[in-house]
Amino acid sequence: MKGTLVSDVPQQPAPGSRITAVDTYDIRFPTSRELDGSDAMNPDPDYSAAYVVLRTDAEDQLEGHGFTFTIGRGNDVQVAAIDALRPQLLGRVVAELCTDPGSVSRDLIADSQLRWLGPEKGVMHMAIGAVVNAVWDLVAKRARKPLWQFLADAEPEWLVNQVDFRYIADVLSRDRALTLLQHGKKGAAERAATLRERGYPGYTTSPGWLGYSDEKLTRLAKQAVADGFTQIKLKVGADQADDIRRMRAARAAVGPDIRIAVDANQRWGVSEAVEWMEILAAYDPYWIEEPTSPDDILGHAQIRKALRTMKVATGEHVQNRIVFKQLLQAGAVDVLQIDAARVGGVNENLAILLLAAHYGVPVCPHAGGVGLCELVQHLSMFDFVALSGTTEDRVIEYVDHLHEHFEDPVHVVGGHYAAPTAPGFSAAMRSESIATYRYPDGAFWAADAAPQRAVSA
Amino acid sequence: MKGTLVSDVPQQPAPGSRITAVDTYDIRFPTSRELDGSDAMNPDPDYSAAYVVLRTDAEDQLEGHGFTFTIGRGNDVQVAAIDALRPQLLGRVVAELCTDPGSVSRDLIADSQLRWLGPEKGVMHMAIGAVVNAVWDLVAKRARKPLWQFLADAEPEWLVNQVDFRYIADVLSRDRALTLLQHGKKGAAERAATLRERGYPGYTTSPGWLGYSDEKLTRLAKQAVADGFTQIKLKVGADQADDIRRMRAARAAVGPDIRIAVDANQRWGVSEAVEWMEILAAYDPYWIEEPTSPDDILGHAQIRKALRTMKVATGEHVQNRIVFKQLLQAGAVDVLQIDAARVGGVNENLAILLLAAHYGVPVCPHAGGVGLCELVQHLSMFDFVALSGTTEDRVIEYVDHLHEHFEDPVHVVGGHYAAPTAPGFSAAMRSESIATYRYPDGAFWAADAAPQRAVSA
Repeated sequence: MKGTLVSDVPQQPAPGSRITAVDTYDIRFPTSRELDGSDAMNPDPDYSAAYVVLRTDAEDQLEGHGFTFTIGRGNDVQVAAIDALRPQLLGRVVAELCTDPGSVSRDLIADSQLRWLGPEKGVMHMAIGAVVNAVWDLVAKRARKPLWQFLADAEPEWLVNQVDFRYIADVLSRDRALTLLQHGKKGAAERAATLRERGYPGYTTSPGWLGYSDEKLTRLAKQAVADGFTQIKLKVGADQADDIRRMRAARAAVGPDIRIAVDANQRWGVSEAVEWMEILAAYDPYWIEEPTSPDDILGHAQIRKALRTMKVATGEHVQNRIVFKQLLQAGAVDVLQIDAARVGGVNENLAILLLAAHYGVPVCPHAGGVGLCELVQHLSMFDFVALSGTTEDRVIEYVDHLHEHFEDPVHVVGGHYAAPTAPGFSAAMRSESIATYRYPDGAFWAADAAPQRAVSA
Repeated sequence: MKGTLVSDVPQQPAPGSRITAVDTYDIRFPTSRELDGSDAMNPDPDYSAAYVVLRTDAEDQLEGHGFTFTIGRGNDVQVAAIDALRPQLLGRVVAELCTDPGSVSRDLIADSQLRWLGPEKGVMHMAIGAVVNAVWDLVAKRARKPLWQFLADAEPEWLVNQVDFRYIADVLSRDRALTLLQHGKKGAAERAATLRERGYPGYTTSPGWLGYSDEKLTRLAKQAVADGFTQIKLKVGADQADDIRRMRAARAAVGPDIRIAVDANQRWGVSEAVEWMEILAAYDPYWIEEPTSPDDILGHAQIRKALRTMKVATGEHVQNRIVFKQLLQAGAVDVLQIDAARVGGVNENLAILLLAAHYGVPVCPHAGGVGLCELVQHLSMFDFVALSGTTEDRVIEYVDHLHEHFEDPVHVVGGHYAAPTAPGFSAAMRSESIATYRYPDGAFWAADAAPQRAVSA
């Protein structure tokens, strides 16, 4: 663990190797037609990715892949935002990226003109996240390690330099972060072995979409338990009578020992959230997720204070480390839900994992969508091996959906995510999938539009 | 005040009149070449507007104009975001917009797929703001009133229906908002007369840009006092020694009775802000603006607690009413700075003005940029005439810059904004300016690029 900044130095490229292309793709899957993914705020999502590939002139021909997840319309806006970052990326030296991937993150966030469009939130920040994640994908591939392992093997001194402490140093100093990472090194090898053997616990949202019938909910809930999951999740918040009926059906299907989380997807204000959940409390929900706006730190704190029999969770729409910091400061959440593709990428998620570790709050990532499981597993696995050191009360969301489009899809067995072994961030989408679902000119969409064109012609 | 929803019903269009075009323009001014607008976070802004024109097939040929202000790169992303809203707008019935402009605001915010890109923040939310403001411009033009007057004349019951109480009802109920608006009607006619006679107080940032020499600062500060301003503002936060020298020069130039606000443009963390401002306190700053991230509600509260000899102000980058709500809840600010083009347009700014009135916190709008003075004056004037009922400790920022590009530019005389009299929201840019500064094909940019093209050819 001494000598070099990273414990395993990747094979260095020729000094001249640089980023030569930043290719972007608008990819959309027609998921709204099946009501997969339907919830109280998102009745008809078309799961989509604003996808980016960083290409270099290095001899190894390795690429960095990353994306922002969206739910359909506006995916083109997200692509435009990634395109706006291209001039900042072209020509960057690959060796420098490998030594300090955080340099890209810092430079992109510091672009004063683009910063005006956030700052550090929304479309522009998610675009930065897609690019930063693509950089880490490339870096881990060059190190010939899956990202979780690359991060877990990294020196604490190097890792802490990857974190931007601006606006969070009032609660988490660099020194404290370093101490946490150094502490995380103890027993890391044993935990890595455990992870490879048993995987990381998951929970499934597959039974709980609002668009599903009670029969389908019951069948899928039973299947989840049979598959080894110890926690499922139901979407709630559209209709109270429906929620009571569905919650009752789910509880009947899984019995008293399986955790049932519920997710309102920001549907309520503070008092509605409290009133609604006091009613559902009869069915022992494990957590209430996104009871209100992700921006409402003080609102979450009030809700948590009022609902003592269940946990309060949020994070998939939390815009950056600054809001996560305050959720922790205010005692507003019991469970912190990071998303791999909402904030500014791996560097900012490192900051958020450190904040959570500092406060001792468990991280249970948001996943599902397109490729979010593939990405976020790496962050939780790093956290287990080399930061928090535990999987207690920690689960990664799992939805069995669209994984077939990825080159290195997640493997969930017995309710556990198997540790990835392929180098990189598991972000690469299969080229056939890109060719089929590229919008609007991919094979699927072109064929889909054909009859309408015939009619309107 | 009875009978109709709006006290003056605009001449109704033929029932069939609809929005027929949503035209967008990427307009950029090369302001970075003069260091106008330079501050600690934004060294070289090119003031820009993602500009939108709503056209209809009504006989009156009136258009609705609106825009998002940006500082250069990324203005194209902002235009793409407005373009993404076009399908929601085309075909809308003009008469319905006039009866309920809030319907557009609600529908755009509720688009579940686009909402994923925020929610209610950043690029997508600012795009909604541009469109919603354009709708209000059209509505006020059809009513043949300047927007401030249109709002001040509106029935409280109608106005309160324009506000989205989602996520703020825990501190501001619809009933309380209605009471505030009803109370605001008392004496409104007298205040409108006062406003027309004296205007609304402004303050000027023109002396204080970081890029200016001390000589220029001193000269402009003296000029500001001679022009009738009772408050000026200095940018700070890049270099402490410079700040002390500039603050001393400014204080010497204006004397002890003129308020000098300072603005750090988010440069600091919590402890840096407190330490830096404890030093500048010797020169009696009136407020410290944007001491830290606009997302850091609890951080602002800490800073305010520590700095009792000056006020704490923020808001120009505050993303929506939910964060404003919490800044007020947490006692984090003495001065609330709305921006006309950052949040979701007039409807959301109504919510924010109501929150401020509820908490008794003065609103001193952010302006400058491109057209922000033109827009925001209407909101402050409405607030004075028909909501807070006072201009005490309230001033609108003023920068004497780029007004010549607007058809109905602000008139600031004796340190006061004269009340606009032309119908609408003063948002329309002159067509010659659009033709010249459209990026990259307007006359200015085409000529600017020509030599480079010659070189690279």
